[in-house]
Amino acid sequence: MSSPLFPQHVIARKRDGHSLTRDEIASFVRGATDGSWADYQLSAMLMAIFLRGMTADETAIYTETMMRSGYVADLSNVKRPKADKHSTGGVGDKISLHLAPMIAACGVAVPMISGRGLGHSGGTLDKLESIPGFRVNLSAAEYRAQVEQIGLCLIGQTTELAPADKKLYALRDVTGTVECVPLICASILSKKLAEGTDVLVGDVKFGRGAFMKNKADARRLAESLVSVSNQLGVPMRAILTAMDQPLGRSVGNALEVIESIECLRGEGPADTMEVTYALGEQMLLLAKVVKTKSEARLKLEQSIATGRALEKFGELIASQGGDARVIEDLNRLPGAKFAEPFVAVRAGFVTDVDAMGVALAAFRLGAGRAKAEDKIDPAVGVSGLVKIGERVGAGSPLCVIHANDEKALAEAQRMLATAIVIGDKPVVAVKLIDDVIGM
Amino acid sequence: MSSPLFPQHVIARKRDGHSLTRDEIASFVRGATDGSWADYQLSAMLMAIFLRGMTADETAIYTETMMRSGYVADLSNVKRPKADKHSTGGVGDKISLHLAPMIAACGVAVPMISGRGLGHSGGTLDKLESIPGFRVNLSAAEYRAQVEQIGLCLIGQTTELAPADKKLYALRDVTGTVECVPLICASILSKKLAEGTDVLVGDVKFGRGAFMKNKADARRLAESLVSVSNQLGVPMRAILTAMDQPLGRSVGNALEVIESIECLRGEGPADTMEVTYALGEQMLLLAKVVKTKSEARLKLEQSIATGRALEKFGELIASQGGDARVIEDLNRLPGAKFAEPFVAVRAGFVTDVDAMGVALAAFRLGAGRAKAEDKIDPAVGVSGLVKIGERVGAGSPLCVIHANDEKALAEAQRMLATAIVIGDKPVVAVKLIDDVIGM
Repeated sequence: MSSPLFPQHVIARKRDGHSLTRDEIASFVRGATDGSWADYQLSAMLMAIFLRGMTADETAIYTETMMRSGYVADLSNVKRPKADKHSTGGVGDKISLHLAPMIAACGVAVPMISGRGLGHSGGTLDKLESIPGFRVNLSAAEYRAQVEQIGLCLIGQTTELAPADKKLYALRDVTGTVECVPLICASILSKKLAEGTDVLVGDVKFGRGAFMKNKADARRLAESLVSVSNQLGVPMRAILTAMDQPLGRSVGNALEVIESIECLRGEGPADTMEVTYALGEQMLLLAKVVKTKSEARLKLEQSIATGRALEKFGELIASQGGDARVIEDLNRLPGAKFAEPFVAVRAGFVTDVDAMGVALAAFRLGAGRAKAEDKIDPAVGVSGLVKIGERVGAGSPLCVIHANDEKALAEAQRMLATAIVIGDKPVVAVKLIDDVIGM
Repeated sequence: MSSPLFPQHVIARKRDGHSLTRDEIASFVRGATDGSWADYQLSAMLMAIFLRGMTADETAIYTETMMRSGYVADLSNVKRPKADKHSTGGVGDKISLHLAPMIAACGVAVPMISGRGLGHSGGTLDKLESIPGFRVNLSAAEYRAQVEQIGLCLIGQTTELAPADKKLYALRDVTGTVECVPLICASILSKKLAEGTDVLVGDVKFGRGAFMKNKADARRLAESLVSVSNQLGVPMRAILTAMDQPLGRSVGNALEVIESIECLRGEGPADTMEVTYALGEQMLLLAKVVKTKSEARLKLEQSIATGRALEKFGELIASQGGDARVIEDLNRLPGAKFAEPFVAVRAGFVTDVDAMGVALAAFRLGAGRAKAEDKIDPAVGVSGLVKIGERVGAGSPLCVIHANDEKALAEAQRMLATAIVIGDKPVVAVKLIDDVIGM
């Protein structure tokens, strides 16, 4: 029996720097869904948490309570080990599209429920939807069955995951309480752990094109994610990756599907593949289907070399109603009216490709959405993007701009002219993979 | 021209420990009255202020902006100097009732607008209303005219003072953001400075029976009040006074009017008079009608000795519609059905009279209100209360309980039996006046 907890007393406890009990945290989370806490009490608590912090134990309890505020998938029907990965998001990050079939081809099931991203470029679901016919809105029963049958499913939220997080996230957005490690950690994991995976690998990005601008903050978030996920019984590791220039050579929905198919054909860009292998190795290690990193690497390489990963991607597309012939025929993906090379005005070395600048150009072309109800254009974006350190000649292409609108094309050109910098001396880009957390 | 200020950006600035600009503070205060800030944004800001604090300049700007959110009295018609005092409130604190006429009798006008107190015993307005016919709801024009004519007016809020404070105070009460010096300071002064006084003296109480439980907090509040009031052009000093045992010998509305009349007759309890003189001296000094404390003291004593202060109290009562004959005939005040002596069960020395215990007994008798709409009973309370350090014999009275209900009487007796402690050895009470801030 617990005595009634008045919101203002729970708030005052956190305000004064105390650790909250399970009952107090439960009162707060319940308050966010049943209205027993007013919005102004929720937001005062969020600010108190922002400024006073939460211990690892509090964050774990908070995360679990938020997760249990909504639908939690039961995948006990799936006998294979299950692994998933979560990225905090970056420009050109299409890794889920090809990594998931690679992992499934290695005998580990990938149950992946994603939210629909807001922002400069589409999320994983938007990229998949550029494949004609692809359905992301499977029912919970279809999801369970498909993970069992083909070891792979990538869907949107059908039933509501963590409604308490939805409520609190909306409040955080308008009360200056977004950038707070325990709140971010609980928001990510409360939804991710509801999908039924056994193990989890995180890709926590830092830099100009990432949510976390500096490495120290990204490290703190990665450590918190790993600690909380482990505490809640889902073994997790996270890699810290730089996000100053876009990942790979394409930004835009169908264009990123093409790059992922190229990855599955063994023709992926070096940087995209470096992160892909790093994440895949940890997924196979945590899922205990391999003993060493090199064994994992070999297995992943073989999934590509044998064509089994590409085949698995085709199975995924077919199983979710899409046109699986795209894996052989890229022309079946939507194409844009214009495909204009954007060329260097001088010779030299690429000294900068600002991820955010490229993302905003892609957004201007129509690749993202500003509001949840906005429609995105699957065909537009940039491809063949140069990387920092590469040598270019005067007049040689820095990328190809895919556009459906001349005015947007012209504006994207202007934006890219600022984002891509050519200098006299070669430079070395920031090391892509900084560290692995949780080893 | 100022750019639009988004609430979440202003909140984030305070969250990160910055000082807010005048425009940012104005946005927040305006948001509290015109709805341009949502309640959840106001409360997140209050928590950020609670945990990050405000500089003296910010507090002054915040106070002034809150004051200007409502009615501000114009007393330019009053040619005499004007002084008022504000108490943070304590058990048995009836000082305003007799100090105001004493000051007016010394040639300094006292314009006093009070809020109606919630809590264990009534506020100044409730005490005045125990005088038959007394009206506290004068119009703004009547208020101006009476201060000019008789140099004295004690009323409730007729037009709205500081509506922004009203909104924010209600939110603070339910979001754990009450006990915060800059917020308390602005809440008090935004209303007090709206009444049109030239100078102000504060009585900031600390101890079990006060809002501020410890002296360090009370000192910080007193310093903040003095600093902000001075910065806003109203010279102020504050005295720190102990509130562990009730002030004087009576607690209850009509009973406290009786004690005040006794003070005006030169028969007031020593502790009540000590605080009365200390406050009055500072009021006369700040109003510049005297040059020294001893000159002030003499003037105040003469106001009593000559009967002019008591006469002034009669004028006040008559001018506000009350039965001024009470100053001669205390029986015209409401009396309770029972007046039961509460006696000592043993001989010894009074070692404690817990102010909060006495207040709760008075509340049980009906002297206070829990909700704004509750009716109080003017007649009930305790009188003739012993003071810490006094010697008592077995069976001698510790106080008289005034009750209109036998059940409440019995309960009050039980409560007082705990609140009043008799020991073997004499003790000395905490020094009543601790310090004067702003000298």
